[in-house]
Amino acid sequence: MPYVNIQITREGATAAQKAELIGGVTALLQRVLGKNPATTVVVIDEVDTDNWGIGGLPVLDYRAQQASGGPAR
Amino acid sequence: MPYVNIQITREGATAAQKAELIGGVTALLQRVLGKNPATTVVVIDEVDTDNWGIGGLPVLDYRAQQASGGPAR
Amino acid sequence: MPYVNIQITREGATAAQKAELIGGVTALLQRVLGKNPATTVVVIDEVDTDNWGIGGLPVLDYRAQQASGGPAR
Amino acid sequence: MPYVNIQITREGATAAQKAELIGGVTALLQRVLGKNPATTVVVIDEVDTDNWGIGGLPVLDYRAQQASGGPAR
Amino acid sequence: MPYVNIQITREGATAAQKAELIGGVTALLQRVLGKNPATTVVVIDEVDTDNWGIGGLPVLDYRAQQASGGPAR
Amino acid sequence: MPYVNIQITREGATAAQKAELIGGVTALLQRVLGKNPATTVVVIDEVDTDNWGIGGLPVLDYRAQQASGGPAR
Repeated sequence: MPYVNIQITREGATAAQKAELIGGVTALLQRVLGKNPATTVVVIDEVDTDNWGIGGLPVLDYRAQQASGGPAR
Repeated sequence: MPYVNIQITREGATAAQKAELIGGVTALLQRVLGKNPATTVVVIDEVDTDNWGIGGLPVLDYRAQQASGGPAR
Repeated sequence: MPYVNIQITREGATAAQKAELIGGVTALLQRVLGKNPATTVVVIDEVDTDNWGIGGLPVLDYRAQQASGGPAR
Repeated sequence: MPYVNIQITREGATAAQKAELIGGVTALLQRVLGKNPATTVVVIDEVDTDNWGIGGLPVLDYRAQQASGGPAR
Repeated sequence: MPYVNIQITREGATAAQKAELIGGVTALLQRVLGKNPATTVVVIDEVDTDNWGIGGLPVLDYRAQQASGGPAR
Repeated sequence: MPYVNIQITREGATAAQKAELIGGVTALLQRVLGKNPATTVVVIDEVDTDNWGIGGLPVLDYRAQQASGGPAR
């Protein structure tokens, strides 16, 4: 009866893609650990890009910096 | 000073119902463990049904399958 | 099919107390929102006091400060 | 490669303020623990005030009670 | 740069099994959403069985009840 | 009354370092958003390295691969 929380930026994942994530991670837990799919809960959080930070920056600023060859890796 | 996170599908819980959850879980922690209500934090997350999986399916698909006597339990 | 996460400091909650929390919060969700107990998941995290902060201090320092009439409320 | 989740009430935090939180907490982890900013992830959750409880009440009710000198501290 | 949290009961998952979960969920996010594995973070929480509730009971009690044909589903 | 969860690998952070994280993030939220330190909760999770994945690998394998100039970035 696992619980899985998947956090991604909100950038247009479709219902079909989210269904594929739910099915895929549930199957993975069944295959690797024998967990019962019937009681596996998966919750997907889609997070606004302003609210997601990486490299000390909001993610869109981070990507722009990466694309321009800026100092951050 | 507990922290409680309640995750439910977003299906029309009213402000009054959410207030009742907040009051109820705070009282429970006071009664069972003597926790101070003044510093008990409760956060309710309402999750879109597309983003909630159970039984390897998005929850609305899961419920439809259950209702039709499908293979998953 | 809610998911509830309860975070408390690790200070000797017994198995019976934790069972009471699990039963109580599950019943609350059934009573207020009609949620099915069979698919309500509750996870309790017990956190070492060194790892719990309130008022800008580890919780044991915070309590000592409160007890001595220190500046923090 | 830490992960930090900051939960606040949704009350008008600006993109600039959220960027400052992301930069500040990433710098803190680098300074205190030597964590690499490039792999430090920060996720900010802004929670509707109806969904945030403190002192056994939704936060706006709690603040109103505090302002009126009510019984809760 | 997703973040995934997998919560399971602490019942002897091996390091190899946990590595398989980490690799599997990272590959799933790459395949379905094109997410970069290099910045996909996976955190596995193993939770003591006393601290995991389902059906209003600690999980070991729940399983015993199921095995004995008790009232809960 | 924010809640902050900091997740790091369990690799010997001292109580003093953890206190510095608690104080630092609480001060940051006060400075940027005017949040009251008295009701700011910080919870630090230290995660076993077997249970932390990055780049599709447990973190120690990932670091070894990086150090040897392996294919992953």
